[in-house]
Amino acid sequence: MEQAGEFLLSKIARGDGHGENSPYFEGWKAYEDDPFHPIKNPNGVIQMGLAENQLSCDLVQEWITSNPEASICSVEGVHEFKDIANFQDYHGLPLFRQGVAKLMGRTRGNRVKFDPDRIVMSGGATGAHEVTAFCLADPGDAFLVPTPYYPGFDRDLRWRTGVQLIPVTCESKNNFKLTKKALESALEKAKEDNITVKGLLITNPSNPLGTIMDKETLKMVVTFINHNHIHLVSDEIYAATVFSHPGFTSIAEIIEEEDIKMECDRNLVHIVYSLSKDMGFPGFRVGIIYSYNDNVVNCARKMSSFGLVSTQTQHLIAAMLSDDEFVQRFLAESARRLAKRYGIFCQGLRQVGIKCLQSNGGLFLWMDLRPLLKKQTFEEEMALWRVIIHKVKINVSPGCSFHCCEPGWFRVCYANMDDRAVQVSLARMRGFVLQNKDVMLSSKKPCSPRNLMLPRNLMLSFSSMRMDDFLMSPHSPIPQSPLVKATT
Amino acid sequence: MEQAGEFLLSKIARGDGHGENSPYFEGWKAYEDDPFHPIKNPNGVIQMGLAENQLSCDLVQEWITSNPEASICSVEGVHEFKDIANFQDYHGLPLFRQGVAKLMGRTRGNRVKFDPDRIVMSGGATGAHEVTAFCLADPGDAFLVPTPYYPGFDRDLRWRTGVQLIPVTCESKNNFKLTKKALESALEKAKEDNITVKGLLITNPSNPLGTIMDKETLKMVVTFINHNHIHLVSDEIYAATVFSHPGFTSIAEIIEEEDIKMECDRNLVHIVYSLSKDMGFPGFRVGIIYSYNDNVVNCARKMSSFGLVSTQTQHLIAAMLSDDEFVQRFLAESARRLAKRYGIFCQGLRQVGIKCLQSNGGLFLWMDLRPLLKKQTFEEEMALWRVIIHKVKINVSPGCSFHCCEPGWFRVCYANMDDRAVQVSLARMRGFVLQNKDVMLSSKKPCSPRNLMLPRNLMLSFSSMRMDDFLMSPHSPIPQSPLVKATT
Repeated sequence: MEQAGEFLLSKIARGDGHGENSPYFEGWKAYEDDPFHPIKNPNGVIQMGLAENQLSCDLVQEWITSNPEASICSVEGVHEFKDIANFQDYHGLPLFRQGVAKLMGRTRGNRVKFDPDRIVMSGGATGAHEVTAFCLADPGDAFLVPTPYYPGFDRDLRWRTGVQLIPVTCESKNNFKLTKKALESALEKAKEDNITVKGLLITNPSNPLGTIMDKETLKMVVTFINHNHIHLVSDEIYAATVFSHPGFTSIAEIIEEEDIKMECDRNLVHIVYSLSKDMGFPGFRVGIIYSYNDNVVNCARKMSSFGLVSTQTQHLIAAMLSDDEFVQRFLAESARRLAKRYGIFCQGLRQVGIKCLQSNGGLFLWMDLRPLLKKQTFEEEMALWRVIIHKVKINVSPGCSFHCCEPGWFRVCYANMDDRAVQVSLARMRGFVLQNKDVMLSSKKPCSPRNLMLPRNLMLSFSSMRMDDFLMSPHSPIPQSPLVKATT
Repeated sequence: MEQAGEFLLSKIARGDGHGENSPYFEGWKAYEDDPFHPIKNPNGVIQMGLAENQLSCDLVQEWITSNPEASICSVEGVHEFKDIANFQDYHGLPLFRQGVAKLMGRTRGNRVKFDPDRIVMSGGATGAHEVTAFCLADPGDAFLVPTPYYPGFDRDLRWRTGVQLIPVTCESKNNFKLTKKALESALEKAKEDNITVKGLLITNPSNPLGTIMDKETLKMVVTFINHNHIHLVSDEIYAATVFSHPGFTSIAEIIEEEDIKMECDRNLVHIVYSLSKDMGFPGFRVGIIYSYNDNVVNCARKMSSFGLVSTQTQHLIAAMLSDDEFVQRFLAESARRLAKRYGIFCQGLRQVGIKCLQSNGGLFLWMDLRPLLKKQTFEEEMALWRVIIHKVKINVSPGCSFHCCEPGWFRVCYANMDDRAVQVSLARMRGFVLQNKDVMLSSKKPCSPRNLMLPRNLMLSFSSMRMDDFLMSPHSPIPQSPLVKATT
């Protein structure tokens, strides 16, 4: 019986290519076992490992209340139910594609137009990336991916396609900016290993960095892929989360630039988009592939049959995105709220000496805890992470899960919670760091040997904590850390 | 430039594994180019190639009108919008899984219970079949599939997985019933060809036959797969379309039978389900994998990330399926309406001498036009099909697209249209056949050589048609065939 349960399955089913053992997902489990709730479970783990955008959901709810006919499941819109529920054309509802094309233009400052006939839908960005990989690469082929990168790529692009990902090293010394040298070095290495590189995958704005790529870097990228005849997939699912200057530049704009236009073969350029982050609808599974290559559009559209967007959802989104006034207001207000939240977090951390990479997009901070590591190793990073998640009770994500080349960086998501949870999490983080103030001030000082799982220098009791350490915080006069609670 | 557009793509993208060149899809295109509309385009092609269930949509619309709070996009339900729009757990909403499990039990007469924790969602049955194939088989491995079978299987199970399908021949002489001999012969042949067979895929109720499998056949199937240590995937997406006795028997019931229970390794048994046919929501993309194998449940659930059901849709369906009284009424009324429609079509065709395979489920008839073929070849079948689609202007699907081993059979879908379109299509079909009455009465009589594309004996002008041929029809006193219109 055991044999049938396991050994008669496919290699994919028996393998661990899904990557669910990564710390990124391990942290989610810790949260799920003991989730924070302000009243029901105030000492629970706060989920800061989830890049959700919940800050402007009220605007959408207002719109729905004012536009009940936009839904086929309201008294006002039910007359359209039959036609919509039965629509299963993989081209999608024309108004849906038009709405998404318009949104893509708007989130790129209307400096470039998108053709609705090139909009291919898919099951979230997850499905979009897999479909793109299936279209562009054979098993064993590879994509170059600058680090640090979203851990889900290891699943989305590799798991069922057999495609490989080759990291392109980016470093803190130049704020993790992608360089030509790093690209060439990764490509060279792949050639030495006899691996066929079929493309380069960039994420702009970056997850986990929250930074945007500047025009010069994007031009370098376009030149690089054309020179080497490989594809470029630009993941732009955080386009509308950019909240301050300089604004976001899409690859769609770069390939229109005079000096690039001539040298660029557009057949090589593909964009992955989604409404999960920019609009805050991850549950609706709206992923988009926008390709300049007709063959990819055709093939991806056929593949979209495996992950079409529910027509109930297409219909709603078509109506919502056709309301120009609403979309404009939503995007502006969403950016304003994200900027505010980013500011609160950055300032709160800075006051206790924690630095973050300067960024202006995404739904997260890239937090530098290198001073808290005794040795600059990934073992130490994991040990610190386990303290943060199990003792400080905040689920942040360690840099290693993003394939970061330097230990000590952590991604902190800040847009998936309300103001109250923000204050609790900041207080916990600040309390924790203040207890390790000496370490923060001088990370070089010698420490005694410690348990790798729970480094002793990070296990200081909060009982010795001075209240004024907290009172100097502009946000959290009363520390909420469960560690504090447990020791006082 | 051409190189990049095509040659830098994957083998999958460059190949034709999608199967869109099959006549099954070709017929859809003919319909799309000239779709019938009772007022706007009364001479257009009538779509009878689409297995949609539109007969009971009014009941769902009534329910929605009475339950506006079931939607997160109504004034009454919008307070749940944020939680639902942000929910992206691949386990799905618990109430959704409970509702689907309950529906699966009910459509099987509540003779067997389904465990909500074994319900895995996917992007329609399309996604469910692909995920199952990815879990069970490696590239090059094969599934046995009794013919005739749904053409989409060639795409769903094979295209991106590299899995093969091996036909198991079923014949008209025993009403296309699956036999042990046919299974053993197909398996033997595969062994000779050094192909690893990983499973057997059955469709019960059958698409395109509309028939159900009897208990003895199902027991034989379970014994066969256990004896050979291969998986059994039972596609039961038409479970609730069975409209007359004997009722539907699920594989879930068979494996509970005393004489089967002991010998059956449940790890080998998997069911594919969907709400597209039974409830009539193909646009909502609700596919279900129900596996008795824990490893498959776990792996399929992870794979479902590529085709999750929109939470907007999950939420609606959870509410609808929790209304026992509604579900019971819907299923009973839907079966009643399907039975009535089936009766009208069968009778209408029988009166002009067209026989259909006796069936009691599905959304289609399996029509026997062998008497209209001069020679019993698939070339003749295709020639006849082209006349039907381009001259009679009805898009039915030829048997060859279902891998039927005998030429001359056609699938006719009858539940995707209103009563008016039914009468028009019946009148066209009857008019066409009456013009070939001699052929129907004596299919053996010699004919002159003819053009393969448009056989001359089927190109008789309708101008010679006798009105009383039509007046004897109980349904269509005035023929609506565009051929008639063009010649009178």
